[in-house]
Amino acid sequence: MEELRQWFEILSAVGTDPAGGFYRGSYTPQEQELCRLIGGWMKEAGLSVRRDAAGNLWGRAEGSGQGKEELPVVTGSHMDSVRGGGNYDGIYGVLGGLAAVKELLAEHGAPRRPVEVVSFTGEEGSRFSIGLMGSHAATGTLKKEDLYEKTDPAGISVAEGMREVGLDPERLEEAAHGPVGAYLEMHIEQGPVLEQKKIPIGIVDSIVGTQQFRVTMYGEAGHAGTVPMNARRDPMVYAARAIARFPAVAANSGDGVITVGRIWARPDAENVIPGEVSFTVDLRHPCEEIKQEMIRTVRAICEEEAAPGGRPVGWTAFPDNPATAMDPELKKRLSDACGALGLPCLAMPSGAGHDAMNMAFLGPVGMLFIPCRGGRSHCPQEYASFEDMRRGVDVLKETLYHLAWEP
Amino acid sequence: MEELRQWFEILSAVGTDPAGGFYRGSYTPQEQELCRLIGGWMKEAGLSVRRDAAGNLWGRAEGSGQGKEELPVVTGSHMDSVRGGGNYDGIYGVLGGLAAVKELLAEHGAPRRPVEVVSFTGEEGSRFSIGLMGSHAATGTLKKEDLYEKTDPAGISVAEGMREVGLDPERLEEAAHGPVGAYLEMHIEQGPVLEQKKIPIGIVDSIVGTQQFRVTMYGEAGHAGTVPMNARRDPMVYAARAIARFPAVAANSGDGVITVGRIWARPDAENVIPGEVSFTVDLRHPCEEIKQEMIRTVRAICEEEAAPGGRPVGWTAFPDNPATAMDPELKKRLSDACGALGLPCLAMPSGAGHDAMNMAFLGPVGMLFIPCRGGRSHCPQEYASFEDMRRGVDVLKETLYHLAWEP
Repeated sequence: MEELRQWFEILSAVGTDPAGGFYRGSYTPQEQELCRLIGGWMKEAGLSVRRDAAGNLWGRAEGSGQGKEELPVVTGSHMDSVRGGGNYDGIYGVLGGLAAVKELLAEHGAPRRPVEVVSFTGEEGSRFSIGLMGSHAATGTLKKEDLYEKTDPAGISVAEGMREVGLDPERLEEAAHGPVGAYLEMHIEQGPVLEQKKIPIGIVDSIVGTQQFRVTMYGEAGHAGTVPMNARRDPMVYAARAIARFPAVAANSGDGVITVGRIWARPDAENVIPGEVSFTVDLRHPCEEIKQEMIRTVRAICEEEAAPGGRPVGWTAFPDNPATAMDPELKKRLSDACGALGLPCLAMPSGAGHDAMNMAFLGPVGMLFIPCRGGRSHCPQEYASFEDMRRGVDVLKETLYHLAWEP
Repeated sequence: MEELRQWFEILSAVGTDPAGGFYRGSYTPQEQELCRLIGGWMKEAGLSVRRDAAGNLWGRAEGSGQGKEELPVVTGSHMDSVRGGGNYDGIYGVLGGLAAVKELLAEHGAPRRPVEVVSFTGEEGSRFSIGLMGSHAATGTLKKEDLYEKTDPAGISVAEGMREVGLDPERLEEAAHGPVGAYLEMHIEQGPVLEQKKIPIGIVDSIVGTQQFRVTMYGEAGHAGTVPMNARRDPMVYAARAIARFPAVAANSGDGVITVGRIWARPDAENVIPGEVSFTVDLRHPCEEIKQEMIRTVRAICEEEAAPGGRPVGWTAFPDNPATAMDPELKKRLSDACGALGLPCLAMPSGAGHDAMNMAFLGPVGMLFIPCRGGRSHCPQEYASFEDMRRGVDVLKETLYHLAWEP
């Protein structure tokens, strides 16, 4: 507990964003400093440390005895942050995982099977617009051409950024990690549910499937003063009527959510009836079938509200993230650990994407959540208490013990 | 008819916008060319021509006989256009007015009282962001400091623009015109009503009062995936619900219109629940009292739809344009002229602002509208037929005859 607190205090001076909060983008000096510190703490814990070809930081304890040839049990999360983000998103899973492993090594010696702690780079995609970048590299699904094509806002490519910290983009494929026996990721909830229900541990059932669209509704641009209401084909009104109906679609879906985060009108003038209004739809549900049903409903609503006989509603779908189910065995182990520790827990979906979505391609994955204040995340106000963080570490430690140390 | 057609054909080569349509901003070479051509046609009609200190072009026939000391009867409109505008908005009132006066001079000789044809600059405010600029100068309500403070998108001030065409901004006050006996402005409707009703002439009752607001609705920004629907305070939903209710407010007001032409969310990201959504409201009604009632209703709707107990709805009101009633005597004269010519006419509000709003400070004003195709204006598709334009000229000519020539 004291050590975890110290680690967070030390990190609270690393990568502070002048605008408030933190910014720890991939391959920045701030991330380099994180690697130096975390790598040092990994070594102190007794782990052998390496940085893979994509810049992910790994600490490993070899297995002893019968399990030493088995697939590794991996825990961790990501070390990068959004711009103006908090000190807990991602990094809690790294430091909490390291704390659990360090204590287990100290208490029980070498594990039966290999254990790894990972600190992924670029999960947020906040420097380069590639989400889950480090874990994509670890699963071999990051495309080498993206390293040359994607740039940060200053025009520096991923490859250039990698070279600045001594990584060779041409060796990207060496970052691919083999199969894992289990991947356990601990994370702040980033939502208000655990805090509101006063439950210390969330066990993720499924990471939601996400689909984003850009929707454009068309009408007829016109002078704001001279076109009577009954002669208008105003796409702002169509869009408003459609958007006002989305919350009911989400509510009827159970755990689904729908967000319209961006909207803009063209020609975008105070005194002109718009000719088109575009908005984004971010739609999520932990069950893929229900997600697909929600997509159909949202589309039908937009078509109903659009001008009859007018230009069809424009739809641009962004790449789809299907829902990722957590491994039932790992969910049960996490739940059993809570039971053994006397901690209430809640089965819940993860509304956000996580590196576990990629790690699921390498083996069974499980995730646990702890509460964060007000459900706030991706902002300087992000906060998780040390008591809550400690409870998460205890559950993870108990679970890791059964997976990797228990004879 | 043939001459008016020729004039429009000649002007169809002046100030063409490379992006389509026309652009004839104040003090541009394009407007200079218009002045050269229109000034020449004014002289051919027998008018003495002057450009006032603000760049408005005036042609004048002195009164003869008993009425020569009377206040002038003025007709005209504006010569500037929006960017990508049409060949009829404004310029029809200038050329149509000139055609009527030219024919009256040819048929009846000098008028009893002075007659003037005016071609205002800068009505649209499309180069400098000052609407009705030329007629503001003519009524003495244009502020000299605006000439130095307001600039075009290239950073050139009004004063610099004036100097480029030989005008002295320090002599602005010389543009102030004395009282007028009557001001009659002819214009394309810029809306679909006359065309739809197949009525050739609209007689304006009142120029609508206009009020624009910027409204901001507040909520709580959050992660699009992790905040359940029932825990959200989503200002996009509040704004959508409010905007969806505005058309009914306008419909219930009779001739009122409400337009939301701009909308934007902050932080404006696909995967973030907005913290605030702002939009503009342009609200118009020909009756000032009903306009004020509409404003109160729109505001109440926004407050009803906003988060209960949240940050109050933000309101920024832009300068108010009260409704401008047309002179009853001039309306009757225009209507009598239609009767004498056997032309059906419709009393109607003007939903757009016009130089007549300023000229009303100098004397009684009247306006007449002719149909334009599809109600389109401020776009390259703007079109009025020569038959319709001729009918407007006939009504104006008949009215001017009674006002200024009839013994």
